[in-house]
Formats: sequence, structure tokens, C-alpha cells
Amino acid sequence: MLSFECDYNVGAHEKILQKLVETNLEPLPGYGADKYCESARAKIKEACGRDDAEVFLLVGGTQTNQTVISSVIASYEGVISADTGHINAHEAGAVEYTGHKVISIPHKYGKIEPDALKKYLSVFFSDENREHMTAPGLVYISHPTEYGTLYTLDELTSLSCICKDHGIPLYLDGARLGYGLMSGGTDVTMKDIARLCDIIYIGGTKVGALCGEAVVFTHGNAPKGFFTSVKQHGALLAKGRLLGIQFDVLFTDGLYFEISKNAIKAADRMREIFRKKGYEFFIETVTNQIFIILENKKAEELKKYVSFGFWEKYGDDRTVYRFASSWATTEEDVNALEALL
Amino acid sequence: MLSFECDYNVGAHEKILQKLVETNLEPLPGYGADKYCESARAKIKEACGRDDAEVFLLVGGTQTNQTVISSVIASYEGVISADTGHINAHEAGAVEYTGHKVISIPHKYGKIEPDALKKYLSVFFSDENREHMTAPGLVYISHPTEYGTLYTLDELTSLSCICKDHGIPLYLDGARLGYGLMSGGTDVTMKDIARLCDIIYIGGTKVGALCGEAVVFTHGNAPKGFFTSVKQHGALLAKGRLLGIQFDVLFTDGLYFEISKNAIKAADRMREIFRKKGYEFFIETVTNQIFIILENKKAEELKKYVSFGFWEKYGDDRTVYRFASSWATTEEDVNALEALL
Amino acid sequence: MLSFECDYNVGAHEKILQKLVETNLEPLPGYGADKYCESARAKIKEACGRDDAEVFLLVGGTQTNQTVISSVIASYEGVISADTGHINAHEAGAVEYTGHKVISIPHKYGKIEPDALKKYLSVFFSDENREHMTAPGLVYISHPTEYGTLYTLDELTSLSCICKDHGIPLYLDGARLGYGLMSGGTDVTMKDIARLCDIIYIGGTKVGALCGEAVVFTHGNAPKGFFTSVKQHGALLAKGRLLGIQFDVLFTDGLYFEISKNAIKAADRMREIFRKKGYEFFIETVTNQIFIILENKKAEELKKYVSFGFWEKYGDDRTVYRFASSWATTEEDVNALEALL
Amino acid sequence: MLSFECDYNVGAHEKILQKLVETNLEPLPGYGADKYCESARAKIKEACGRDDAEVFLLVGGTQTNQTVISSVIASYEGVISADTGHINAHEAGAVEYTGHKVISIPHKYGKIEPDALKKYLSVFFSDENREHMTAPGLVYISHPTEYGTLYTLDELTSLSCICKDHGIPLYLDGARLGYGLMSGGTDVTMKDIARLCDIIYIGGTKVGALCGEAVVFTHGNAPKGFFTSVKQHGALLAKGRLLGIQFDVLFTDGLYFEISKNAIKAADRMREIFRKKGYEFFIETVTNQIFIILENKKAEELKKYVSFGFWEKYGDDRTVYRFASSWATTEEDVNALEALL
Repeated sequence: MLSFECDYNVGAHEKILQKLVETNLEPLPGYGADKYCESARAKIKEACGRDDAEVFLLVGGTQTNQTVISSVIASYEGVISADTGHINAHEAGAVEYTGHKVISIPHKYGKIEPDALKKYLSVFFSDENREHMTAPGLVYISHPTEYGTLYTLDELTSLSCICKDHGIPLYLDGARLGYGLMSGGTDVTMKDIARLCDIIYIGGTKVGALCGEAVVFTHGNAPKGFFTSVKQHGALLAKGRLLGIQFDVLFTDGLYFEISKNAIKAADRMREIFRKKGYEFFIETVTNQIFIILENKKAEELKKYVSFGFWEKYGDDRTVYRFASSWATTEEDVNALEALL
Repeated sequence: MLSFECDYNVGAHEKILQKLVETNLEPLPGYGADKYCESARAKIKEACGRDDAEVFLLVGGTQTNQTVISSVIASYEGVISADTGHINAHEAGAVEYTGHKVISIPHKYGKIEPDALKKYLSVFFSDENREHMTAPGLVYISHPTEYGTLYTLDELTSLSCICKDHGIPLYLDGARLGYGLMSGGTDVTMKDIARLCDIIYIGGTKVGALCGEAVVFTHGNAPKGFFTSVKQHGALLAKGRLLGIQFDVLFTDGLYFEISKNAIKAADRMREIFRKKGYEFFIETVTNQIFIILENKKAEELKKYVSFGFWEKYGDDRTVYRFASSWATTEEDVNALEALL
Repeated sequence: MLSFECDYNVGAHEKILQKLVETNLEPLPGYGADKYCESARAKIKEACGRDDAEVFLLVGGTQTNQTVISSVIASYEGVISADTGHINAHEAGAVEYTGHKVISIPHKYGKIEPDALKKYLSVFFSDENREHMTAPGLVYISHPTEYGTLYTLDELTSLSCICKDHGIPLYLDGARLGYGLMSGGTDVTMKDIARLCDIIYIGGTKVGALCGEAVVFTHGNAPKGFFTSVKQHGALLAKGRLLGIQFDVLFTDGLYFEISKNAIKAADRMREIFRKKGYEFFIETVTNQIFIILENKKAEELKKYVSFGFWEKYGDDRTVYRFASSWATTEEDVNALEALL
Repeated sequence: MLSFECDYNVGAHEKILQKLVETNLEPLPGYGADKYCESARAKIKEACGRDDAEVFLLVGGTQTNQTVISSVIASYEGVISADTGHINAHEAGAVEYTGHKVISIPHKYGKIEPDALKKYLSVFFSDENREHMTAPGLVYISHPTEYGTLYTLDELTSLSCICKDHGIPLYLDGARLGYGLMSGGTDVTMKDIARLCDIIYIGGTKVGALCGEAVVFTHGNAPKGFFTSVKQHGALLAKGRLLGIQFDVLFTDGLYFEISKNAIKAADRMREIFRKKGYEFFIETVTNQIFIILENKKAEELKKYVSFGFWEKYGDDRTVYRFASSWATTEEDVNALEALL
């Protein structure tokens, strides 16, 4: 059975497993104080080009968003997100669970348009009743977005400026950051992101790790007590080594980027195949996620041989499905998919 | 200086003050256990035509919404609201503060259209990823809405049926309920509302009281421990008598409805005046709130003589303002306004 | 029926009611922006002897504690309280509801002893695992305490110094502050309190008002966005005038202190009577609350003629009851009680 | 460098790593829907002797306690714990963060004594003001406790009966459950626990896994929507396989119990050594944790060669330290420790 359901359907990159095995019986301090965590943090700072960055390793994406957002904003503040943003749509209200409103702005292909943000802020700050409303305390974007799209350097620069002008930090959810950076369709680098955003998280779960997301406060701006906040959110791993070792391996010799590249190559070929075979795209993407509109009947048939992800209904007879490649997708997988379509 | 800024700009109906004075030195038990609270609760149940109702008296509207919603739904559930709903727009994120998402649906003149609700629920329950999303646990509507509009009996019946079909209770925010019931443009009665909704709150603050909102669980459906929840939300008044006496007076001999009628009469005349003088309406309303689009220059001038409420900007040169009548608006007030316009 | 159940069993001081009646039809802006609120705030600042104070008027005590505490401390911090503190024992977990731990310290007659606080902080800050524990972000004391006892000036000064040394603000719950300040057994003045504490609330509900508590940030230290926090907690009254007028009256010509004195006089006489008649005191107090241990049989008998408050069981056959005087207690009331005992 | 600091200082049991490697490239559904999770759940149910149990796999202990407790109790309820309970002392206020009070009861050697629980409940339910207090909605115990002690079958049965009598579920935190069950000093079996408790969690992190805790609702009593609650708490792992595989291995052929036995043997020998060499025990334990009082000077010296955990200060010159064995402790480790002491 072929699997293009998602980018978290297999385990970890073999180098990670190998290192886990090698270091397994080394006694190490807990809670992220071990040398592998330290090394991982140093390498991530270097990849970001930020000496003054502070790095924390958490376990999962929803957890990371919840912990970061609720620690960074004041109790009366909320976080701005595209309505399609993961925190708004698919995290079971995790941000609200910590007491904060997600202030949603209509998306454009999964993105917050700079003009839409500027307009929202301008309306908010000119509203005479704004003290009765949730104050925006953070802007959340995902890159790649939930639709597999990417911000251009221009757009990212604009969002960054607007945020700075209003004294509101910019937070980038990089659950699939590697796939964004390695896409042929981007002009944005890791260092651009670290320079333009106040906080980012670099996704491990979907890019080669068993689990793990690296939060980067890009300029010494981690909130006071953040370690305790991580504990308070149930996000502190006793065996922090599990995260440290994984990120240490991923950020050694550019492995993170190299394996991301593999997913992009596979996806590019898949896009070609879908296009050639006349499939209808729900949205144009340049990363590892491809959204295809299928007749329900056709979908049922395909499901016998290949798994892929439900996205949303598209009228009564058709459905949008997601086909995802990953760091682990092989040429054979893509060939087999081609044969099926 | 004339005041049409809002419907909470003066104190209480004189009968309320009189009763407060008369009973002032009577020693009474605290926290709502006094005889005036009891009497108020009985009268409200009667007005609702529901023997099996349970009534609680709280202090303010945001507080009431926050306390009711967070006590009724499970920790993983959210509340559906029109995007313009008070809980979504103007309560400073009070519902989210208690850990629950407000799931917003695009409004039509401030209302949730039955079809929009049905569609939202149908999409939600057919979404294969719905367990990763906030489950809808309550439907919130306001009547009158924040735009001064009203549900028809048909619409209310439809919403009620849709809710029942999905096992989701229907909650009606009646901050201005009196004005809705006494409007010439309604076919909905108090008893209809109590029959069709699972929970309602009958607003006192904006309809003759100094403060106070009466929550009605219409069929013995108050959540377990609700008294403690009220305390836990900081919503329990030590001198519960302040609320009991006010609602007891308001629901004696139909005072609540009689004074609501006064606001409607005043508003109807104001609408006539605005129309006659060629003012532009932002939206058509049938209750005590009137939304007028004014040139900013004109508005500045008028503000010297009459106060009215900012609603929202309308392009660069114009602004929407709210003119509200209330239970206390006099013919003289309206005449004076007419002279100014 | 005599009533010594509590200090919130009757309405408001007559001057308050009179002012409410006089100003009733004056149109005023809402949400605390009216001139009576302004005047009240100015008078309270003056009574505190603090030009740089910031004053906010809220409705009830639990609400005030909840709103203040959760707005002042960071999300990972808790509040230190005596285990008998109102926030720890009798507010239905309202502080925890906002996400913060109440860190309880064993009390001595309802008070936090300076040495106990010093020890707690010293143990906490020398604990190598403290980052896994709730960080203390505020110290909460009540004055008078829940047991009717008072801090001496020495004790208050010590607590204040310890707090300053650790960079932790000191918050005083003055639900019955007037009764504390007018007690014959105190050497603490209003200005001492305002000088030594970072935040205080001056109770209105139990000292002459229908409702209302005045929060004082004594040195311009109100947290950013506090107005919005008040709204977010459901603690913002639309008709802020109800609070403004009451506090304006209470702080005109020292009325607050004068009526507090009345409660103390009554309580002093009651203590004499209980003592003379051989009743057993549960604890020695110098304010308006008196705790008496009664045989259950005796208590049942007395309850036919006078109401008083359950405090706690005292073995199987006896119970501790609270007898409270208030600003409204008359000589006749005390005489009648004497006759009954 | 020897390490007796804790029981989470090395990686995972080799069989776990081996299985992770073997299954690594198998595509599997996410979020716990894979066959290894299913198999793990079945084996755990069997080990519990409960066909009607429901099992969920979470990542860490604090997270598990937070998610379970906040999902099981109502919004106005709190959880009873010994004051030394992990949730009360060392989880950074994670339970309070979700809005619930931890109601602490004085411990006896880390345990809640049945009589203490009975007394607390009896006082609570006879308190006339109990509706102003946090209602107890759950009883939390840890087994082994934070002090390495164990409940007897008698004690556990009593607690279970008291809980049933009051309609309050009993929740057992088994972060080190294996070490408790394999101790020579226990008369309690896995099946006893599953029979007497309503909810338990079986710790993986400290007993052979890299991470992972298995929550067991012992009689089909998982709260509605619990999967979504797990997601909402950021506790849902995308690659659920990481947890499924680990628990599947641990519960195959009794591995969990076998490796737990190893820790107990090591600890028993360590206790002998300490005793023989005249070290002072802070508390008598029968599981894998040993608490020793050391002169600070002695401790500094030892720290050069062996790591062990700070527990608490013991006067000015001495400190309590924890020495822990684990599933991975070897005879050589213990011999080396013996040589050092």
C-alpha cells in the first residue's frame, strides 16, 4: 500500500536512529540540560545566523504554538492569524484553552496579506471601543502555510515592518519550514526568516524526526520564566536527549535542508504527473503538499492502493484531497503513484 | 446636553429606587437567598411560562455570557456565534479567557441565518479531521442583535430545531430583550423564546435597572454546581438583594415590558425624524438602536449638543454612529434632537 | 428577628441612596468615565496620601481578587496566601480558575507571619528544582483577616520589606478595611497601608455600600491594559456611576471611617457582653467579627431569635459561629442581643 | 562518572530501539491510529485484567496529569492531593493552569491516609459554606509516591471505598508504577490497582521508554471528547507510533515488569550498602528511590564521582539527596557506588 497521506507517516531519518542507538546508555542530565541539546541549540543558532537567539526544544506543533503564544502575550491580548491558520482551524482550540482569542483575518491562499494586516490594525487602533476588544499581542503566520504556499521575501518584509511599527512581535510556525526553504518557488532564506521574525519554530516532526520542534527567540527575547512555562504546559520532556539528539543530527552538515530537498523533488515530480494526467488542482503550491480535487468515486477506487488525506468536501460529488511527499519519499513511491493515476 | 449615546446613560426606574430605599434596612440573607430574589425568580418563571425554569441573577452582560457559556459546555467545546456577536467582538475575549473558542459564522444583519448554521454543522460533522477541531457545544444568538435587528419566529424556530437535531443547546443573549419584545416589527413573544431556547438572559442593565441580568435555564437544565461556578467567576453578589429587588420590581405588573415600550415609541419617532431629514441609515432596525452614517464634519458639530455612540468608520470622511433610545427617553428629548438635526 | 450574621445584611448608607436618587436621571458616560467615578478616584487617592496612585472601581470582592491577581502576575507565577486567606479558602477557586496557583502558607491567627514568609521564600529560592515549581509573583494578605485579626505596623513593615527584597509586590485585601483602621487595637493608618503595599482594595460592600470595591495601585503601577482586563473578567459595570457615586459619598467628609467606627463600637460592646456572660471565644479579635464556640443545642435555640454565621464545627457537640457587627448596627440591636444571651 | 541522579538518565530498553529501527520505514497512520498503538492498548488492558478499559498514550507525566485531571472534573471542581503530590509540588502549577485548584491534604510519608481523606470530605460536606468553596471532583494519589513509598492493599481499598461513597473517582499516578509493583514491600498487584482505581497512568518514561505514559480509564469511563482534549492540551503526538511501539514492546512477555524488577534489586542492594556504611536515611523506602541525608561537605566530594539528585535542605550543614536506581542500573554501577561511599 502506497502512502501519500501526510509527511509524518514514517519514523525518523536513519542517522537519527543510529545516534539514538549509539548514545542510548550514556547517562545524561534531564530536561534539556544535556550536551546534545546544547549542541543542537548552538547549531540552530548558527543556521539562523543569530548569536543572540535563544532556542528551546519542544515535542509537538500544537504544544509549541500553545506554549509560545500564551507565554509571549499578556493575559488581555490575543493573537492574529489567518482564518486558515493551524492555530485557528486545526488545533482543537489549544490557544483559546490558555485564555487567549485567536483573532482571525481572511486568508489569501493561506497567507495573511500585508495590506489585510495593516487594515485590521488601522481599524482596531482607530476604534473608539478598542478597550472593550481583544488587543492584538502577536501576529502568527505559517510558512509554508496550511495550503502549501509560501510568503515572498517582499511579503515577509512588509509583515515584519507592520509588526514593528505597532510594537507587535511576529511569530512564524515552521512546522514544514525545511520544505519551504528548499522549494524552487521561494526567495526566502533561513537567515531572512530569523532576521524578520521575532519568534520561529523549526519543525522536526514533519522533517525527519520522530517528534520535536525547535523554538527560536531570534534576538534574546525569550519571555522571563519560559522554562517554567514549558513545564507548566506539560511540554517539558524528562529525557530531553530525545529532542537534543534529533535536532543535533538534523542540523549537522545541513541534513535538515538536504532531506527537505528530497521532499520537494518528489513533490515537483508529482505535480508534473498530476498535471500531465489532467487532474484538477485545488490550489497551486510549490512545497511538499499537493491539493487535488477528485470525484468521490475515483477517490474510493484509488484508496484501495494508496492512502491520501481528506482536506474538504467540494460540492456533493467531489472532494479535495491532499497528497504529501516527505523527506522519506522515494523515486519508487512516485513511480508507483504515477502508475496508479 | 442631550444624550442618545446608549441605553445605559441614566440610573434606574424610579420604582426600583423607591423599593431599594424602602427595604434598605431590612436584614436579609446574602448571596441571593433573600425573599426578593425568590420573588423575582418566581415572577420571571411566570413571565416565561415555564414552571420548570431555573433562574439566577447576575450583575452584568459580559459576566453573564462568560459564566453561562463556560459552565454549560465541556472543556473541549466552543460556542458558535455570529462574527458580529457581542461575545465575539466586544467582550474583550471574555469567553476565550475561560478556555473556550468562539466559533464565528458570518452574520446577516447581525443574525445567524438558519441555513448558515445548518451548513456549518454539516461541514463540521462530515469533516474527517473534526476531532482535531473545536467541537460546537452551544449556539449563541443575541436578540435584539448588536445591530438592533430581530429574529422572526420562523428563524428562531428553525435555529431551535437545528440545535435540537444536533444535541446542541441554544442560548439567547437578551441584553435588550425588552426592546425586542416590544418592537412593532416582531412576531416573537417572551414565551416563544423560553420555549425555543435552552438558556436565555433577560437584560436589566439596559432596561431600567442599575445593573443585573437574569439567566433562565428554561427547563430545569442548569448545570450542576452552577451556584459555585457563579462564585468562581466573581459574579456572585454578597448583597444579592440589589438584584432581587430590581428584578422583582421590573417583573411586577409588567413594568419591564411597559418601559421597554417607551423606548420603542421614542425610537420609532427618531427613525421618522432621521428619514424625513434625509439622513442615511447604515442598517434598517426595528428596536431602540438606530445607526446613522454621518459626515465627520457634521458629526463634530452635532457632538457639541448631543452625545451619540461611535460605531465604525465608513470610509475616510464618514462614520457610522449609533443613536439609542431607552426606557427613560422622554418626548422632550426627542423633540430636542429633532430641533438639532 | 435580630441579625448578626454578617456585615452585608442590610442595604447602603442612607447618604448613598439619597445621592443615587438625586443623580438618577443625569445622563452620564458609561464604564467608569463619569464625573462621580472621577471624583471618587480623586478622593480615594487623597485618603491614601498618594498622588501617583491609580484607582479602579469593581463590583465584588472575589471578582476584585481574581481580576487583580491574574492581571498582575505572569502566566507561570502564583500568589502566596495564608492557608486561611479568602482567596485560598472561600472564593471557589476563582484565582485558580484564571490559571494561577495559590501558594498557601500556614497562618497564625489568619495572618502570614513575616518569618514564615521569609522562610518560604528562602526555601523556594534555594531549591535546585525551583524552575519546576510555581514561582511566587505576589503576596496576598487580608487586613482585617478572615479571623478578624490585624497586622501591626511592625508586621506590615516587615512583610513589605521582605516583598521588596524579592521584587514581589504586596497586595492587601481590604474587604473590611474600614473596620481594621477604626479598631482600637491597631497602630496602622490608611496612609501606612498605601505606603507599604503595592496594591490594595478598599472594600465597599461590607462598609456601607450596596456593592463595590476600590482597587488602588499605590504608585502608578497598574498593569498595562488593566481596563481591558477588567472587561475581560466580566467585572466592568456599564453603569459605572453606581460605583462612582457610592465611593464618592463614602469618601466625602470621612464617612467611610465614621461608619466603620460605629461597627467597632458595637463589636466592642458585644465582646464585653459575651465575655461577661461566660461565652467561650474561638479567637481574640479587635474588629467587627466575633467568633464564639456554642453548644449545638444552645445554638439551635438562639437561632430562633437571632441569625449568626456558621464558621466551622468544633468537635461533635459544638460549633464555632461568627457574630458580626457592621456600619449599620444600632445600640438597640446590641441591647436586644444582650437580652437573648 | 557514575549516575544515580534519577531514573530517566539513559535512553530506552534495547528491545524498544530495535523495534523502532525495524518498523522505521513502515508507513502508518498518525495520531495513535496505527497497529502498534492498537496492540499496545490491547496488551495494557490485558495486563490490567480489564476488558472494558480504555487506553490512551500520552508523552509525559505532567502533561498526562494535566490532561486527565482537567478533562475528568467539572469546571468548578478541584482535585485532592497530598501536599507532597507531584501535581501540587513539582509540576509548575500545571493543573491550576487549566483552571482547577489542587486541594492539598497533609501527607504521611507521601501518602494520603484514608482517615485524613475521610475527615477532609466529612468537614467539607458538613460545611454550610461549601458552595463557596472548590468542590472535590477527583482524588489524586501517586504510587509509588514522590517519597518512594507505597500504599498497602488495605489502604488502597479504603481510599477506593471512600471515593465511591462520595461519588468521586480515584486517580493513580503511576509514573514509577513498575517499581512499585515489583517491590518486595508490596501486596498490591496491577489488577488490584485497575480494580480499585477509576483512572491510572502507567509510566513509561521512567521505566524503559524514551517517553510515554499510558492512561487507563479502567471501566469504560473515558470522558466524552477525550481525544480532542488530548489534542487541545498539545499532548497528541503526530507520530503516535513512537508511543505505540514503545508500549507494545514493554507489555510483550512482561518486559515492563521484568526490567522494573532489575531496578528493585539494585535499590535493595544500595539500601544495604548505605545502611552498612552508616549513612542516615531521610525516609524508609521500598522502591527504586533512596533518600539519604549527607553533610554538605561530603556531598561536594561525592559529586566529583557520582551524580545524585538534590531533594531538600536539611538544616544549614546537611542536605537530603536522592539516589535512584532504574531498569538500566547494572551490578557494576552498584559496585562502583559501593566503592565510593
